[in-house]
Amino acid sequence: VIPDLQAIVGDEHVLVDPDLKASYETDWTGRFTGTALAVVRPRTTEEVAAVLLVCASAGAKVMVQGGNTGLVGGGVPAGGEVLVSLARLTDIGPIEAGQVTVGAGVTLAALQAKALAEGFDFGVDLAARDSCTIGGMIATNAGGIRVLRYGSMRRQLVGIEAVLADGSVLSRMPGLDKDGTGYDLVGLLAGSEGTLGVITQARLRLWPRLTQRAVALLAAESVEAIVEMLPALRGGLPSLAAVEFFLPPGLGLVRKHAGLPAPFSAEHPAYLLVECTDRVDPLDQLAAVVEELPGLVDATVATDAAGQRALWGYREKHTESISAEGVPIKLDVSLPLTLLASFIAQVGPKIEAACPGARPIMFGHVNEGNVHVNILDTGSLHDEVTDAVLQLVASLDGSISSEHGVGRAKVPWLGLTRSPVEIAAMRAVKNALDPTGLLNPGVILG
Amino acid sequence: VIPDLQAIVGDEHVLVDPDLKASYETDWTGRFTGTALAVVRPRTTEEVAAVLLVCASAGAKVMVQGGNTGLVGGGVPAGGEVLVSLARLTDIGPIEAGQVTVGAGVTLAALQAKALAEGFDFGVDLAARDSCTIGGMIATNAGGIRVLRYGSMRRQLVGIEAVLADGSVLSRMPGLDKDGTGYDLVGLLAGSEGTLGVITQARLRLWPRLTQRAVALLAAESVEAIVEMLPALRGGLPSLAAVEFFLPPGLGLVRKHAGLPAPFSAEHPAYLLVECTDRVDPLDQLAAVVEELPGLVDATVATDAAGQRALWGYREKHTESISAEGVPIKLDVSLPLTLLASFIAQVGPKIEAACPGARPIMFGHVNEGNVHVNILDTGSLHDEVTDAVLQLVASLDGSISSEHGVGRAKVPWLGLTRSPVEIAAMRAVKNALDPTGLLNPGVILG
Repeated sequence: VIPDLQAIVGDEHVLVDPDLKASYETDWTGRFTGTALAVVRPRTTEEVAAVLLVCASAGAKVMVQGGNTGLVGGGVPAGGEVLVSLARLTDIGPIEAGQVTVGAGVTLAALQAKALAEGFDFGVDLAARDSCTIGGMIATNAGGIRVLRYGSMRRQLVGIEAVLADGSVLSRMPGLDKDGTGYDLVGLLAGSEGTLGVITQARLRLWPRLTQRAVALLAAESVEAIVEMLPALRGGLPSLAAVEFFLPPGLGLVRKHAGLPAPFSAEHPAYLLVECTDRVDPLDQLAAVVEELPGLVDATVATDAAGQRALWGYREKHTESISAEGVPIKLDVSLPLTLLASFIAQVGPKIEAACPGARPIMFGHVNEGNVHVNILDTGSLHDEVTDAVLQLVASLDGSISSEHGVGRAKVPWLGLTRSPVEIAAMRAVKNALDPTGLLNPGVILG
Repeated sequence: VIPDLQAIVGDEHVLVDPDLKASYETDWTGRFTGTALAVVRPRTTEEVAAVLLVCASAGAKVMVQGGNTGLVGGGVPAGGEVLVSLARLTDIGPIEAGQVTVGAGVTLAALQAKALAEGFDFGVDLAARDSCTIGGMIATNAGGIRVLRYGSMRRQLVGIEAVLADGSVLSRMPGLDKDGTGYDLVGLLAGSEGTLGVITQARLRLWPRLTQRAVALLAAESVEAIVEMLPALRGGLPSLAAVEFFLPPGLGLVRKHAGLPAPFSAEHPAYLLVECTDRVDPLDQLAAVVEELPGLVDATVATDAAGQRALWGYREKHTESISAEGVPIKLDVSLPLTLLASFIAQVGPKIEAACPGARPIMFGHVNEGNVHVNILDTGSLHDEVTDAVLQLVASLDGSISSEHGVGRAKVPWLGLTRSPVEIAAMRAVKNALDPTGLLNPGVILG
């Protein structure tokens, strides 16, 4: 298979030397690793199609990789696959009618820079922006802090190009905002984690840039209170752009490792970071709504950009502060909003029972009921702690993965929250589009 | 099969008398008609599942119907099917966390009334609101005038319950705003026009109601100008809720049949109806943006609710005014925005060549490039005129159906704008989920 692959992409883009392959074979957290038969780096959709045909006829499986920033082992080999890296599909087209065509290997940061230069914003933003690629973000239907305002990746898509398992190219790229002719194949490929096709290009919606910003950090009398504040925030603030929560343990780590001062004179049970963006300064509107919030015990509003960045720091420095403390288990769950507080109340004792002394740090996106559960000091009890948390999620009608995907890591728990009927339907769709199981074996459906 | 169906839903809900079946067997436009073996009116998801199993084991095909307001013949029998009407699935649950669970047979008007009573809006609105049902709207991924602000039906869905062809019930109803566990089956069922499953319930997102409104009617120097106005409207007005266009022929019919006065002292090449909604009065913002629009030749802004309704009348009375003139061919296409003006310039001559004397009346949703092409005085040349318009759409990279669906009416033209690879992928998905072709035979894929 190697000479055939070399003939397609050139010798220098078929890596077989272990040293050259290494950075593709292990994820950035170091938790998932496997040996690839070869790493292939095509430059075009046509090359991807040719690579897939060669692999299919040789009986080699294919693993697809974007920026290798995933958190669920969905982009590294299990062992023996041809790893297809899309990092060289980096073309960015012109912005026309508020849309842009980008290659799968374009990083989020490169897209953001392009949009910004022409007065637009891209709707999804993530901490991994310098490395994560648009193809990978679509494949996992990535979310982040702006889902409340702009939706997840699927919502940003007005077109897609993908190579299917039989080497055919599915292309839907004219940039139609609305198209009622048959099944939503674009939306189906989004979130399919590379198991139904290899996304090579996308046509993306951009949003007019909103330059005026107001940020407040709120202290709440309870976790229940942050959920109860949401209707007033959403109802009173059409300019609402983000509602992020965190809790005292996370704030403690952020203060310890990032050296930030205490935001309030006392500690409080829960914190909410609220941002509004608009064409005109939304500060007065935000302040007026905050004053009337139920369950509010303290609040601080930033009046300039430096102050806004400082308030965001309490939320954004969580990930690095947790990592400074140790290697956490990183879970990403969502709950019905009415059960979010109940989950947060119960999860600590469940974790303690599974692994005495383990330390959960939680934060996330309130509007979507999305809790990032990071757990430190779990020793060898990784699976036991994961199971305890995800069983609780399932008992509360939640999802075991809100925005990270299933990958290989969450496969054992998929059946907790997706019914046999749903899993059978997914398997039928997989078999329909990839009958030989060529693409990303072991991902999502195991 | 009749006694078995009677045993499930009760004798009175299995209609076999031609007079009783008649209203289900012909669509409201009178263009599509067929004889059903029987009309079955289940009350619950369980009854729907039992009906499907009976039909499957008897070898009878199933046609699914909501409010029978479709425009493409997707809800009436071709002949011999068991017609399953979902009109009795009318339960509406409580509004919780900005979401509501509704049965497939709930009308849009009933949902709107429920939402309004608790300070919410539903994101999709249509002229057929008193008759069309939520199930049918999901099945066709219905759009309408507010897509710019809130998206189409798929975007309103946070959960779905559907009976699959094998009688199994796919239920995804906890109301999770974000769920990264596998394929987007909810989004796939939306827009599948009943061919992949029978939607029986949905969990829907509601939006906080915005009570302050500003409406302007703009006259533009050309059709190109209305497209060129869009970036300034979108960029300058976060409160933008609708941007609708119409042209002199449509305005003429509206003035003739609805008796409206001329909106401006002279006739202009194109008109744009712009609405903003917000928590605070958006009139000043709207007026400031309108003043600076390129290609503007005249404008009128309504300052009170009566004036706003009057301005909306010019756009909303198009459909009834066209019907008052005759029975039109109703096409619903979308174009890339950069080619919208080109389409409108070319379509008149194409129609004239196919059918001399035919009169196209066009209006629609500018942001989505969605043009409703109504054509009067086509005599017996229905297919020729349709073909002329849709061939032009295809040559301009458009869609032959933007928001009406494919149904049976558009099947012959599906291949114009969906590639063989796309159609093969759709067929594979259909075969995977409905291998015997039980559901809605002839719809979408023929």
